[in-house]
Amino acid sequence: MNPTHLETLRAFQAADSFASGERFAVEYLLEGDEKEALARAKDICIEQTVEFPEDLLPDGFIRAHVLGKIENFKKTENGYEARIAFPIETAAGELTQLLNVIFGNISLKPGIFLRRLDLPSSIQNMFPGPRYGINGLRKLLDAPACPLLATALKPMGLTPRGLADLAYRFALGGIDIIKDDHGLTDQPYAPFEERVTLCAEAVQRANRETGLRCIYAANITCPDGLLMERASFAKDRGAGAVMIAPGLTGFDAMKRLAGDEGIGLPVICHPAFLGSFVMGGNGISHHVIFGTLPRLSGADASIYPNFGGRFSFSRDECHGIVSGCLEPMGDIASIFPAPGGGMTMENIRENRDFYGPDVIYLMGGGLFRESDDLTANCRRFREFLS
Amino acid sequence: MNPTHLETLRAFQAADSFASGERFAVEYLLEGDEKEALARAKDICIEQTVEFPEDLLPDGFIRAHVLGKIENFKKTENGYEARIAFPIETAAGELTQLLNVIFGNISLKPGIFLRRLDLPSSIQNMFPGPRYGINGLRKLLDAPACPLLATALKPMGLTPRGLADLAYRFALGGIDIIKDDHGLTDQPYAPFEERVTLCAEAVQRANRETGLRCIYAANITCPDGLLMERASFAKDRGAGAVMIAPGLTGFDAMKRLAGDEGIGLPVICHPAFLGSFVMGGNGISHHVIFGTLPRLSGADASIYPNFGGRFSFSRDECHGIVSGCLEPMGDIASIFPAPGGGMTMENIRENRDFYGPDVIYLMGGGLFRESDDLTANCRRFREFLS
Repeated sequence: MNPTHLETLRAFQAADSFASGERFAVEYLLEGDEKEALARAKDICIEQTVEFPEDLLPDGFIRAHVLGKIENFKKTENGYEARIAFPIETAAGELTQLLNVIFGNISLKPGIFLRRLDLPSSIQNMFPGPRYGINGLRKLLDAPACPLLATALKPMGLTPRGLADLAYRFALGGIDIIKDDHGLTDQPYAPFEERVTLCAEAVQRANRETGLRCIYAANITCPDGLLMERASFAKDRGAGAVMIAPGLTGFDAMKRLAGDEGIGLPVICHPAFLGSFVMGGNGISHHVIFGTLPRLSGADASIYPNFGGRFSFSRDECHGIVSGCLEPMGDIASIFPAPGGGMTMENIRENRDFYGPDVIYLMGGGLFRESDDLTANCRRFREFLS
Repeated sequence: MNPTHLETLRAFQAADSFASGERFAVEYLLEGDEKEALARAKDICIEQTVEFPEDLLPDGFIRAHVLGKIENFKKTENGYEARIAFPIETAAGELTQLLNVIFGNISLKPGIFLRRLDLPSSIQNMFPGPRYGINGLRKLLDAPACPLLATALKPMGLTPRGLADLAYRFALGGIDIIKDDHGLTDQPYAPFEERVTLCAEAVQRANRETGLRCIYAANITCPDGLLMERASFAKDRGAGAVMIAPGLTGFDAMKRLAGDEGIGLPVICHPAFLGSFVMGGNGISHHVIFGTLPRLSGADASIYPNFGGRFSFSRDECHGIVSGCLEPMGDIASIFPAPGGGMTMENIRENRDFYGPDVIYLMGGGLFRESDDLTANCRRFREFLS
């Protein structure tokens, strides 16, 4: 008498009216020979949506409007590539769930590498992207065409006054963006509020002297419940931007921050804790993790380790990040790639040819090394680029 | 006249009174020959704290109380292993910053694998861990000694009534924990509120009939600003637990959820989007990412793909997760390992020998396959284990 659970599966499928028919697409590189790679592609269609034995799936809504679909499958230089399209409804308009559909469970399976996202305008509308982007940030900084210069306040262990002293010297030297080192959060020796107050003040004082528009970007990466409070405090004290590491907070925290009208500051994305995604055969491309996703999540600039420095990224990988930041993406503004990590006066020239004007160069320790006069070093960094 | 910036670095170091002298330790496996591995270890001490050229660091507070210290460096079967101790102040009492110190920037460098965390009680006090743990959850479920049984509501594309129908059948069959599939968030065809209301109700109805204490665990993985609201809604409607995927939300969101007195529900950790940490030479061990960190962040159970199923984890890797969940960790309660992903009636026996009693078995699709009677299948699953 009671219907079986398989009858339940058939009977309680959603009505077709719930499906828009629109899909977003994801390109994956798949390991193995043709048969294995195709099996992986088919598995992704199921694992990332219904996570259910395929032979038990009823016909109807679920098969037509929930499962992923292989749109393209081909051999490439590096193995096989599959383009898989997922119904936009599976992402539920949530960034967390979009990430889950594109790579949630399959992050736990070997031989799958997410290369590229292709989002239709209907899903892009759910993720408005950066508030400023390249054009907005250039306007804010009154820097219409050239590369921007950024540096970091460090080392950890200085007092807020010490960090503010450095900020003042940097700002006098014509740096555009002075950010906290991403490790400065709320250590007892440099508490968040005191540090942000003094550093913002120091930069404003320098701006009054130079007539420039340097901004201080406060690192607000912090526990979940404190984020908006810290952002708000930083804004009140005159910070001109905020920095957050989505690897530590989740990408959606960055999206929330960028979208908050009350905050309304430029957002800088830091790559801490995200590196493992690009370090193995399983993972997500540099292009997506440091380009597409920060941009979709509302960052106005994306920091990453440059080629040739103390990290291991290649020129090709950096090129992938740049294209993730700059390539056309519907109505979503382009954002600044911000290479850093071991940049020196010596390697700036090579970078200039590689990056062109739409870039923020982040030089940290290198600025300290040039001479005993930090402000003069900053000016020299600027001259190299103009 | 003006002091140089190097004089600033010397003059503005924090006072020694800011240093407790206590450290937490992290064990890393390092690639390369002895010289290369040692260089990596030294680099970690700097990169994860001051991120500053070592030769420019002044003597004093920073060198004594901020830099990481190599406590041990030795050759092992798989290369070299370094135990590095960081001052507890560097973590600022924040889970986000603790993650940053242990693996933030070095996630971006190859050849570094975080094997193990060793946290002193002073830092554990900042992270109270699970509210229930194994003992608390057993009490709640009136299940004093045996393995617990869990299953998932799916596939995506069913209506809330369809999912509730399955929940009722599962609960009648004696399942302990019925969780949403982690892909069910707020899709238009199964909106969060309707789904949670009907599923919680269905489980309660079954409990009235059976006298058992099955709980429904609502998946509340969602955008940053909605998390506590969804948790609160789920609790009000009678959900007995919540599930969250910290790979999507950040670990700190889970900590906040677990620590919230108003919610006060058991928390189940889902591994979505965390897999890339364990898939290459660079990364974090299964033990830490699926054991230590969920536990530190307040999860009462940690779901992961079991060996022998449709994922690729080995018995050793699963053993590492179990030890992360169960081994002594100061005052932090032990939590349930919850293996799933391709579990069937056939492989339960092998698992019983491997896991012993303190485990939650998560069987999804496998339960549907046994016979046309889902409730009977659940009872059979239970019998296998008693």
